[in-house]
Amino acid sequence: MTLFSEINEQPERIRSLLSSQRKHIEKIAAEIQRHRVDYVFLAARGTSDNAGRYANYLLGAMNGLPLALATPSLFTYYKKPPTLKNALVIGVSQSGKSPDIVSVLEEGRRQGCMTLSITNEPNSPLAQNSDFVLELQAGAEKAVAATKTYTTELMSIAMLSAALSGNKKMWDDLGKVSAWMRETLKQNDVVAQAVQRYRYIDQTVVLGRGFNYATAFEWALKLKELTYIIAEPYSSADFAHGPIAMVESGYPVLAVAAKGKVLDSMLEMLRRLRSDIAAELVVISNDKKALSLAQVPLQIPADTPEWLSPLVSILPAQLFAYHLTLAKGYNTEQPRSIRKVTETK
Amino acid sequence: MTLFSEINEQPERIRSLLSSQRKHIEKIAAEIQRHRVDYVFLAARGTSDNAGRYANYLLGAMNGLPLALATPSLFTYYKKPPTLKNALVIGVSQSGKSPDIVSVLEEGRRQGCMTLSITNEPNSPLAQNSDFVLELQAGAEKAVAATKTYTTELMSIAMLSAALSGNKKMWDDLGKVSAWMRETLKQNDVVAQAVQRYRYIDQTVVLGRGFNYATAFEWALKLKELTYIIAEPYSSADFAHGPIAMVESGYPVLAVAAKGKVLDSMLEMLRRLRSDIAAELVVISNDKKALSLAQVPLQIPADTPEWLSPLVSILPAQLFAYHLTLAKGYNTEQPRSIRKVTETK
Repeated sequence: MTLFSEINEQPERIRSLLSSQRKHIEKIAAEIQRHRVDYVFLAARGTSDNAGRYANYLLGAMNGLPLALATPSLFTYYKKPPTLKNALVIGVSQSGKSPDIVSVLEEGRRQGCMTLSITNEPNSPLAQNSDFVLELQAGAEKAVAATKTYTTELMSIAMLSAALSGNKKMWDDLGKVSAWMRETLKQNDVVAQAVQRYRYIDQTVVLGRGFNYATAFEWALKLKELTYIIAEPYSSADFAHGPIAMVESGYPVLAVAAKGKVLDSMLEMLRRLRSDIAAELVVISNDKKALSLAQVPLQIPADTPEWLSPLVSILPAQLFAYHLTLAKGYNTEQPRSIRKVTETK
Repeated sequence: MTLFSEINEQPERIRSLLSSQRKHIEKIAAEIQRHRVDYVFLAARGTSDNAGRYANYLLGAMNGLPLALATPSLFTYYKKPPTLKNALVIGVSQSGKSPDIVSVLEEGRRQGCMTLSITNEPNSPLAQNSDFVLELQAGAEKAVAATKTYTTELMSIAMLSAALSGNKKMWDDLGKVSAWMRETLKQNDVVAQAVQRYRYIDQTVVLGRGFNYATAFEWALKLKELTYIIAEPYSSADFAHGPIAMVESGYPVLAVAAKGKVLDSMLEMLRRLRSDIAAELVVISNDKKALSLAQVPLQIPADTPEWLSPLVSILPAQLFAYHLTLAKGYNTEQPRSIRKVTETK
C-alpha cells in the first residue's frame, strides 16, 4: 500500500530535510530579518492550509510574527487584492500548481513584498513566482491523501522558526523529531485494533488547541478524504462557544492533547465531555491524565516538546485514518471524487 | 418564541443602526486613516468570528486592508503575543466579556495600536479596553443562538467599510438592506414547510465563497447549536481539495450562492454535486440558475449587491435552523450544553 509506506517514510524524510536544508533556511531567515516584515501573509489550501495553521501559532509564539491566512478569491475572482505593506508573502503547496495560490504570490511580488514558497516541486509555477523556495524533498507522493508532504511542510516551518530565533536549543530539539516519529509509529498494531470499535461511525469532531489546532484540522481532513465520515475540527475554546451542543452520550470525540501550555484547557474540555456528557474519547497525548480519560488512548513520546508535537501527534492520526479506511472497506490509495492535484481558482 | 421574534426584529435593528451610528462610524474611519494601519488584527469567537470572516473579505476587497484573525491562546495560555506593528486591533463580541478576546485588545493597547471593539455591551470589559467602541444597539438578545447581534455586527462592519471608502453608492445600498431583509423574511412559511424534508438528517455540509463564506459558517453554527446535527462549513474551493470525497448520492448539501464574482465558481460546484454525485441541494440565492439546481431553493431579492448579500442571505438560514429545530422537537430558546455568555481563556 503506497499510503502506508508513505506514512512510514516520514521519519527518514524529516531527518534528511534537517541535514540538507538547514543552511539554506538560515539564509532565508537572514533575508526575512533584513526585510523587517510586520507580518506574514500565507496562502494555502487543504493539507497545506493546515501547515499554515501551525505556522500561525509557531511564528507568533517563537518569532513574534502575526500571520494572516490569505483569502485567495480576493486575488482571483474579485481581482481586489489587499495592499500588502511590509508583509512576507508565503505560499504553501505540495504540487505548486493551484492557480489561486500562485496568484497570491504573483501579487505579493508585484507589490514588492518578499515572497517564499514551500513546495515539493521546485520547478512549479509557485516556486517560479517566489524569491525563495523551500523544497520539501519528500520524494514523489503517490497516495492521494497527503502525509509526508504535510510533515515536511511542518518541519520546514519549524526550521524556519528556529533559524529566525537563532535559538540553539530549538535546533537540538529538531534533531530528535525523527526518533520521536519512529517511536510513535511502533503503535501501528495498536491503532489497527483500536479502529475496529469505530467501524460504524459516520461523524465525529476533532479537538485541538494552540500548536495542535493544526493537528485537529489535519486529522479531520484525512478522515474526510479517506473514510468519508464527516469530521469537524475545533479549538476547544471555539467548541465551547456553541458546537458542544451537538455532543450526546456515546458521541465519538477525537482529541489531541499534548503536554504544554494549553493542556489544562484541553483537560478541562475532556473532563466535561467524559463526566458531564459521557462522550466517547480517542485521545492522542503524552500526558497521563489526558490518556486516562480516553476509551482509546494513543501515545506520543513523553519528552516531545509542545512546539514540535504536531510533527509527532499527526502520526497516530494518519494511522487511525488509514486503518479505519481499511476497516470500512474503502480504497486507501484513490478516494472517490478527488485527485492528487486540485487546481482551484 | 424569543428566537423567532429576534429573527424578525432584524430589519428594524439594521435600519435604526444605520441612522443613529453613521456619524460616529465616519469619525472612527477618519481615525483609522490617520493611523495609516498596515493591516487589521481581529479577535472573536463563535458567531462574532463569522462576522470577522465577513470583515476579512469586505475590508480586503473594498478598502485594501489585509486581515489576520487572532489566535487568542497566544495571548492567554502561551503569553507570547505577536508584535502588532502598524495593526488596527479589533475585538468583536456580543457580550464583550470573554477574557481571551479582552486579552487581545489589552495587548494591542499596550503595544500602542489603535483598538476598536464591536459589541452590544458598551460598558463591557472589551469596550473599556478599546479606544473606540462600535455599539450594536441590538437590544437585549435573550435566545442563546445569536441572530440580531450577528447581523448588526455585519452592518457595523459594512458601515465602517463604506466610511473608509467614502463611496456614496455604498451608503445608498446600505439604506436598502432593511427592506431586502423584510422581503426575505416573508418566506417564513415556505421555509417551515421545506425543513420537513430534513427532519431526519444528522449531518450536512454548508458551502459558500467570498463574502458569503461567512454565511456558510454562520448557517452551520446555527444548525449545530440548535438542531445538534453536524454541519461543516466550507469554501467551495477548499471543499474541492479533499472533503468532497464524503458526499454520496442523496447527501444533503446546503449552499449560499449570491449573484456576484464568485457565482460561477459556486455554480460549477453545485452542478458537479447535482449531476456527478446526485447530492441533495438546499440553495440560498438570487440567481435563477443556482436556484434551479436545488431541491429546495430559498430566495433573496434579485437586486441585493454581493457585498451586502451576507446580511440578507443569513435570514433564510436562520429560519431554516429555527424551523428544523421545531421539526426535530428540540428547544429553540435554550440548547443543551451551552450558555448565552461563554467565557473562554
